[in-house]
Amino acid sequence: MLIAAFALAFSGAAAEAPRPPAEIVAEAPASDWRALDPENTLYIDLEDGGRVVVELLPALAPEHVAQVKTLAREGYYDGLDFYRVIDGFVAQGGDTNADDPKTRKSLGSAKPQLTAEFDAPVTDDPPFTPLGDADGFAAETGFVKGFPAARDAAAKREWLVHCYGAFAFGRNDGADTASTEFYVTLAPQRYLDRNLSVFGAVRQGMQYLQGLPRGDAAGGIISEPEKRAKFTIRVAADVPQAERTPLQVMKTTSASFRELIEARRNRPEAFFKFRPDHTDVCAVGVPVRPEE
Amino acid sequence: MLIAAFALAFSGAAAEAPRPPAEIVAEAPASDWRALDPENTLYIDLEDGGRVVVELLPALAPEHVAQVKTLAREGYYDGLDFYRVIDGFVAQGGDTNADDPKTRKSLGSAKPQLTAEFDAPVTDDPPFTPLGDADGFAAETGFVKGFPAARDAAAKREWLVHCYGAFAFGRNDGADTASTEFYVTLAPQRYLDRNLSVFGAVRQGMQYLQGLPRGDAAGGIISEPEKRAKFTIRVAADVPQAERTPLQVMKTTSASFRELIEARRNRPEAFFKFRPDHTDVCAVGVPVRPEE
Repeated sequence: MLIAAFALAFSGAAAEAPRPPAEIVAEAPASDWRALDPENTLYIDLEDGGRVVVELLPALAPEHVAQVKTLAREGYYDGLDFYRVIDGFVAQGGDTNADDPKTRKSLGSAKPQLTAEFDAPVTDDPPFTPLGDADGFAAETGFVKGFPAARDAAAKREWLVHCYGAFAFGRNDGADTASTEFYVTLAPQRYLDRNLSVFGAVRQGMQYLQGLPRGDAAGGIISEPEKRAKFTIRVAADVPQAERTPLQVMKTTSASFRELIEARRNRPEAFFKFRPDHTDVCAVGVPVRPEE
Repeated sequence: MLIAAFALAFSGAAAEAPRPPAEIVAEAPASDWRALDPENTLYIDLEDGGRVVVELLPALAPEHVAQVKTLAREGYYDGLDFYRVIDGFVAQGGDTNADDPKTRKSLGSAKPQLTAEFDAPVTDDPPFTPLGDADGFAAETGFVKGFPAARDAAAKREWLVHCYGAFAFGRNDGADTASTEFYVTLAPQRYLDRNLSVFGAVRQGMQYLQGLPRGDAAGGIISEPEKRAKFTIRVAADVPQAERTPLQVMKTTSASFRELIEARRNRPEAFFKFRPDHTDVCAVGVPVRPEE
């Protein structure tokens, strides 16, 4: 029955067969891509090699973006490490003494606590591109400037969601307790949506985070500090041009991206025998490529 | 409104506060756990160290389980490697010449092609434990003997789904073309459900697969053979007792597991400020622990 519905959906376009995802991405015009803005890009460079490129979205969580850039620019993160790594969940980095004002690393001009930015008022800037499929965790899902997102039109709120490679600040039990520690999701964790402030996404280098040593102690902590992977974090704009990693992201407002969503939903390739006629905000994947 | 609904759901049990997941798992009685059956457990041992423990479920895909055990027992996989690894998608292992009867490794007494076992008739043996939440990819999701699964009661079919760590055979365009190559999902890939025969799940060692070198060539292939991670695969029953990895899996028919689903859905911990009153078949996680 689902397969019949799929065939029907394309019956009006018999002359033009639906294109598979790889073809859509390969043939997307230059105008359907945008370069990463170096002012809103972080490089997490691991001491043992490997660069994780994180794009930040100030629109929905401006205080968190400002804070992480201040911390990166003042060298706060340099020499800190991924001290909590749980397979299939998160890699968390920062200062293990962050909660103790006496022993923690100096915050410099950064704030000791941030007001939660779990969600933000719905605006049209940047625009929200609806996915168009039902979702169990949110009233509606879609994309905001290349980031998987959700919104509740009745409550007039929108937020970034925890798909693969979401970048967010950790916190304690209080909502307004985030300050310096960050995590990256190693698998989708939608139940964390609106419970933490997501304000970025890894655009390249997830394999380095997936390759980190896992925690062996309670809560996923790596008990031996010398086994934790050290890093530096810099804002791309502060890095000499020759050392940057120039990437482009497909515009999620583009015709190519809308076609990609449809291809993910309907899987036109001959390989597929069963088509659920459904996709998920975390299953679409926002294409990234090296700048040409 | 969702939070109000959550409070209401527990108003009849005011004396007994809902327990968080960690507590449910820690306090589950011995009778709510089962040991892995060595006859239906594979050890994928990587040449450079690290054991991936895979539990097989013969009930829904008996031909695939029989085939992988025959291949493992005849040493077919020993010395082969993970030659296709795509971050956030799959790690695939086997013989790169598997499609060419002239150059492929001898299949021994294994079959050259398997009839697809994408799904199976609904039976009560083993029983299906419904999750109870809506799902976009299937009519209904739940668990069959510790494996995330789905079913279509109207069509009377059930199948294992592609959550994190699903173990399945790859195939070519034809439905009945699987033979020896296997993959493990490095993130949920629900769109593959009913398109490939899932017949196992990784119970321990995902970090070794996440740490594999990624493909650099088209289709995620690792172009330099010497960079591919070699392995052996053995059936646990054939491994001397002292070299086994004895694990227990929480029974998904148990009261502890039903309570765990509820805790994943409602997140009773004080940490959570927003509760979607929803969970997903891939977000529950089936607890595993060392045998005591």
